[in-house]
Amino acid sequence: MASSTPPYELVYYTGVPGRGEHIRLLFAEANVIYSDTGSLGMAGARQAVVEHLKGHQNNPPYYAPPMLKHGDLLISQTSNILMYLGQKFGLAGSAANSDEYRVNALALTALDGLSNEVHDNHHPLVSDLPYEDQKDESIRRNKEWLKLRFPKHLAYWQLVLEQSKGQWLMGDTFTYADIVLFQCIDGVKFAYPNVMAHAEKSGKYTAVFQLWDCVRLRPNIAAYLASDKRQKYDWGIYRNYPESDVVPTQAA
Amino acid sequence: MASSTPPYELVYYTGVPGRGEHIRLLFAEANVIYSDTGSLGMAGARQAVVEHLKGHQNNPPYYAPPMLKHGDLLISQTSNILMYLGQKFGLAGSAANSDEYRVNALALTALDGLSNEVHDNHHPLVSDLPYEDQKDESIRRNKEWLKLRFPKHLAYWQLVLEQSKGQWLMGDTFTYADIVLFQCIDGVKFAYPNVMAHAEKSGKYTAVFQLWDCVRLRPNIAAYLASDKRQKYDWGIYRNYPESDVVPTQAA
Repeated sequence: MASSTPPYELVYYTGVPGRGEHIRLLFAEANVIYSDTGSLGMAGARQAVVEHLKGHQNNPPYYAPPMLKHGDLLISQTSNILMYLGQKFGLAGSAANSDEYRVNALALTALDGLSNEVHDNHHPLVSDLPYEDQKDESIRRNKEWLKLRFPKHLAYWQLVLEQSKGQWLMGDTFTYADIVLFQCIDGVKFAYPNVMAHAEKSGKYTAVFQLWDCVRLRPNIAAYLASDKRQKYDWGIYRNYPESDVVPTQAA
Repeated sequence: MASSTPPYELVYYTGVPGRGEHIRLLFAEANVIYSDTGSLGMAGARQAVVEHLKGHQNNPPYYAPPMLKHGDLLISQTSNILMYLGQKFGLAGSAANSDEYRVNALALTALDGLSNEVHDNHHPLVSDLPYEDQKDESIRRNKEWLKLRFPKHLAYWQLVLEQSKGQWLMGDTFTYADIVLFQCIDGVKFAYPNVMAHAEKSGKYTAVFQLWDCVRLRPNIAAYLASDKRQKYDWGIYRNYPESDVVPTQAA
């Protein structure tokens, strides 16, 4: 069966982990061979992205990467690609129980709250303008976000893990939602080291930080993270602006 | 078969169309009977939402509505619920071609660009603070968004429809992605009547405005829109603030 399936091709930029990182981590965990336009270098990857966004054959044009090509199928949207691959590789829970929809809900919620919102913290106006053009707005948004949103997000994930009947978000079953939450927490740790150290010390979110630790120590994930395929955080979603990494007065 | 399937239960607020509207429209198009916590009134619906967010049995707690309950399955996230129902009711394209992932990509992109971004136009800082507390930031964001993002979004959907081999986003096959794009365009028309009238007159996005028109005239959709189940726009995602509905100098 494995030999008859067409190759998996990830179409994404290189130079930052970005949204594509969730997919690279899923491939790593599943130990699946795939091609990656990231290996073409910055310019080559960008060109491949532009080309694939046009759509082809039975595929519509898409708005933004990451994209996945698998035979005739070309799809975009991070959560969508994860759902497709998660089911192929047994990382979406029990199909008989329709777990893939529970897992997709969890993944979407992690991406909304701890990836998209965090991106918008440094780009509260439009992503098309540089940070420097919206720094005042960013500083104000950051302050409110850390006070009002950040504790809600961490408390939510703590609750999911406390209600879970096992060590993962979906009980004893490891799913790609655990990978997504790991990557989100990892990025937030990079962007807000002071705030996250404070949150960890508070003891309110022990299950969340433990999940981060358990995912990164899984053998396939650990090997990937130690490899040169793992991109460094830089200009992407997760940015460390010291002016924003300030523990709020009413701390989380 | 229909009689053996458990009932479909939508768990959402009432008082605005909101994210739940995409799901209500899908049910309308499919002519499926469902229960709706919206029928419990503002307070009753809110209470049902809070209760269901806790999760139960094999379902994790969720972060926000809409939610769908179908037998033992309870799921959240608009795009996720649409994908689940779309496949059940033949509104997700050809399963043999894995169209459900193309349709999900299109639906996610419409929700990102023309629902989430539009919401953030009036709440650029955090959704937890009122508009009045972030009005200055909102006015600046709106101006940039209308200049830089809005034309990109409309041009993208125009392109998808031009490349489509039929009248819908997925060629001749009507899918719930058409419903989602209709509802997004409809909301943006409410929020930005001047800007949208100008965009329509430009003649650049004829296919997009035509799609809006073709969806709203589908018999089941038209009947729903004329019924008292259709909520009025008010305090939700799509708000008409005249100070924001200003055609940009470099117009779309």
